Amino acid sequence: MYNIIYAEGGICLSEGFYADGISAGLKAENAKDMAFIYSELECEIASIFTTNKMYAAPIKHFYAKGDFKTNFVLINSKNANAMTGKAGLDDIGEILSNVKNVVNPLMSSTGVIGVRLPKEKIINGIKLFDFSKKNSSEAAKAIMTTDTFSKEISFKVKLENEKSFNIGAIAKGAGMINPAMATMLCFITTDAKVSKDEMQELLYEVTKTTFNAISVDGDTSTNDTVMLLANAKSGAYEREAFKEALFKVMHFLALEMVRDGEGATKLVTYKVTGAKNNAEAEVVAKALSDSLLVKTALFGEDPNWGRIASTVGASGAESYEEKLKICFDNLCVYDKGQFYFDKEMEDKCAIVMSHKKFTISCDLGIAKGEFKSYGCDLGYEYVKINADYRT
Amino acid sequence: MYNIIYAEGGICLSEGFYADGISAGLKAENAKDMAFIYSELECEIASIFTTNKMYAAPIKHFYAKGDFKTNFVLINSKNANAMTGKAGLDDIGEILSNVKNVVNPLMSSTGVIGVRLPKEKIINGIKLFDFSKKNSSEAAKAIMTTDTFSKEISFKVKLENEKSFNIGAIAKGAGMINPAMATMLCFITTDAKVSKDEMQELLYEVTKTTFNAISVDGDTSTNDTVMLLANAKSGAYEREAFKEALFKVMHFLALEMVRDGEGATKLVTYKVTGAKNNAEAEVVAKALSDSLLVKTALFGEDPNWGRIASTVGASGAESYEEKLKICFDNLCVYDKGQFYFDKEMEDKCAIVMSHKKFTISCDLGIAKGEFKSYGCDLGYEYVKINADYRT
Repeated sequence: MYNIIYAEGGICLSEGFYADGISAGLKAENAKDMAFIYSELECEIASIFTTNKMYAAPIKHFYAKGDFKTNFVLINSKNANAMTGKAGLDDIGEILSNVKNVVNPLMSSTGVIGVRLPKEKIINGIKLFDFSKKNSSEAAKAIMTTDTFSKEISFKVKLENEKSFNIGAIAKGAGMINPAMATMLCFITTDAKVSKDEMQELLYEVTKTTFNAISVDGDTSTNDTVMLLANAKSGAYEREAFKEALFKVMHFLALEMVRDGEGATKLVTYKVTGAKNNAEAEVVAKALSDSLLVKTALFGEDPNWGRIASTVGASGAESYEEKLKICFDNLCVYDKGQFYFDKEMEDKCAIVMSHKKFTISCDLGIAKGEFKSYGCDLGYEYVKINADYRT
Repeated sequence: MYNIIYAEGGICLSEGFYADGISAGLKAENAKDMAFIYSELECEIASIFTTNKMYAAPIKHFYAKGDFKTNFVLINSKNANAMTGKAGLDDIGEILSNVKNVVNPLMSSTGVIGVRLPKEKIINGIKLFDFSKKNSSEAAKAIMTTDTFSKEISFKVKLENEKSFNIGAIAKGAGMINPAMATMLCFITTDAKVSKDEMQELLYEVTKTTFNAISVDGDTSTNDTVMLLANAKSGAYEREAFKEALFKVMHFLALEMVRDGEGATKLVTYKVTGAKNNAEAEVVAKALSDSLLVKTALFGEDPNWGRIASTVGASGAESYEEKLKICFDNLCVYDKGQFYFDKEMEDKCAIVMSHKKFTISCDLGIAKGEFKSYGCDLGYEYVKINADYRT
């Protein structure tokens, strides 16, 4: 048995980790725009990067290093250092050579694509770093781009043997499948004594049902990164406890990202059951959370179950009109060929849809496959943010 | 040799075809909402229907008939007769039993999903049909839903042997990959003496580069239909001439649909070249025309070439930062690692993007694969139309 208890501290709750956010003048008005994560001890690293073939310079820099440990990550917002070729990679080398007394320093960037990093500003910013700071929430703020709130979470995990370890994370963005140049970044720290292979395995597994189950607009950025740093300082570890804590961290942050989806006003869970298998359920759940028609119906608070049915049918997964069941929370509007959608039901459903959080369930009625995805609505604000991003 | 000459008449240019649109009270304010297409002679049929597994009752009705000829199609707007089960199919049978002196009558519907057809209104509407009318443009108006203009086109094809045939079409909607419940429908008539097998083969082939190369919002409706009716009345036919005329008809209407995409203000051609093969070029071209980020950048008239590069990279097709070239019309902004994107170029590109029609070219620099897709921008008006569709 183990207990997972919420505790403040973010990435600095984990013993031996330090972090802060500073202003290097990349953003306007002295907003925080550079963060660091530093560990007293060298860390094992697990990571998942974007599948975008135009992956950015920081990811190239990481891939070029092979197998290694690190104790330092520098993160900047406002500039993605993507499509910058060899020059972008050289910039990273030069910048990181200014960070003293660290092992295999890493960099991560988010912002506009196709512009060289403002190297001088960043190098000057490094001078403001204080490795004794435990300001996780300032680091969380510094990595924001179009985010409207910063995102962090941390838990203490108490094991049966009186030992305990900590896990914490900061994140930004609004989807691994994500919006604008608002790349999804997530940095997780832990003092658990977990092996590199095991944490990489768990990171992949947990990502499937968390960051890979959310959608804001179906795009995949050049810079998407999830990085897990483990310094083993607690000496404690237990696989199931760690996995559950990791899920809690990533699930919380994934939902925070959707909630903060550009212009989003609603967080909707798409619960698909009864599919031929889990993979087909995932196809349907993601088709629903990705669909522009569904997203705009959510924004209009229009219980347009026909669009849900049409999106299920268009997903490519096995589905049948005469087996399908659709519910808004616990209100069933269509069940195996029968409508339950009179004016009274439409009004009731519209009330459900006026809430900030609700669930749309689709039971395909075929077999036992299931998957949950998470999405948001899409309204005028999304268009505004994305039509105006560069200006 | 042959000549393809634009001629007025729409679907009624083809000899022996009649059509009209009437108001049956499905739409408000006596707007036209029901159309017929009638042929003196029975027609061979070629058709392509939606891939949506929740395909609507009219499509089930068609599939149930097996191999047959027809001389009559009834089309209604405002109600899709989709997700209506056996009752929806029975409604079609009852409605069509009221059309006298026709062979294997067909029905096609577009509008809201999940509502039974207003049978009485439609049956009363049938009484208003006059099979001697040649009002193609009224039929084109009657099948509109969120369309802002009606769509028709026709050509006379003169063959070397002094013979000639005609081809014409009406269409509605804004994409085979289409918006809202605004299903894409297209009805093509011809008096060419073409065999069923050959016209089905040509219809598939031409659809690939026309209706299947356009995108408004990436959704596939329950009712999408392209139907080609050939009554052979001219006695004339020549494969290459017919194919080219069919392409001209479908290409024109496909671009009309994008131009009328919900809220669209721009028609953009995505020209992808240098891909590993044509299939990969198609993947990239469609990723670009489907991308919300690209569409909103178009709306903002923001020459954000980084989003173009990122979307190419995210498409899954083989692509390399150091081989890619991106141009707005003839302005090259990125070429194999070099930016040409100073303030002057940005201003020039913004002028290109302020036009109603322009081309974004991506040369992947790998091999000779190429494909052209067509898309539009996405702005506030799209959200407005789709958030409010049912109300």
